[in-house]
Amino acid sequence: MASPFPSFTTKQALEEGAVFTPRFDDDGLIVCITTDATSKDVLMVAYMNAESLRLTLQTGVAHYWSRSRQTLWRKGDTSGQVQNVVEMRTDCDQDAVLLSVSVEGDGGACHTGRPTCFYRRVKASADGAQLQFTTD
Amino acid sequence: MASPFPSFTTKQALEEGAVFTPRFDDDGLIVCITTDATSKDVLMVAYMNAESLRLTLQTGVAHYWSRSRQTLWRKGDTSGQVQNVVEMRTDCDQDAVLLSVSVEGDGGACHTGRPTCFYRRVKASADGAQLQFTTD
Repeated sequence: MASPFPSFTTKQALEEGAVFTPRFDDDGLIVCITTDATSKDVLMVAYMNAESLRLTLQTGVAHYWSRSRQTLWRKGDTSGQVQNVVEMRTDCDQDAVLLSVSVEGDGGACHTGRPTCFYRRVKASADGAQLQFTTD
Repeated sequence: MASPFPSFTTKQALEEGAVFTPRFDDDGLIVCITTDATSKDVLMVAYMNAESLRLTLQTGVAHYWSRSRQTLWRKGDTSGQVQNVVEMRTDCDQDAVLLSVSVEGDGGACHTGRPTCFYRRVKASADGAQLQFTTD
């Protein structure tokens, strides 16, 4: 399927233009960071293909592409943790998307049951690095 | 060069364990989201190879891998925008890193001179999507 988004023309247009020309990688994916609109916590990192990005824009509900299952994925369909998009942004070279969302259901985002996927701190140690569970 | 980090053993250890076993992609990279420790704004998204991740942990200063230049990159070496790591986290399946940083110099992160790389909102429109510049 052809991408519903235009391709970028120049570096100047990419960085300073007003046309959304998302740059998908060789697998047709763009990375998406999803944050909580109220707390600003980073909830998760996931990927979108052109279709999930289009659906997210069109419906106002976050859709992703599951790399492990190779399927389009409307977040919350099974968990109830539907993500309503408050704001979408892109970065300077348009190869990343940032969502600010309001989460339905229990407000969580992680499949482990935790509110955020980033529930462990990384601490340097003599023999590599250890993880510490967080509660905030 | 061999990775200084151990490989993961089981899904259980990956998600619930206390050992940092970062999962690099086929290019040897892991995605890193960098946020401002004070404002919690997402400043940028970049990539790390094992060496830049090791150096970040060891020195407490953010190091990345530049995919375009194919070089290790200590953020701020030319711009002065050195990122001192306040906290590092990883996500449930350890294929992403989240940095909370305090920025030296003018406090910015984007090569365009703006404080954050995410300076444009994406707004759906009849013929695709438009970008709106933000000031916050």
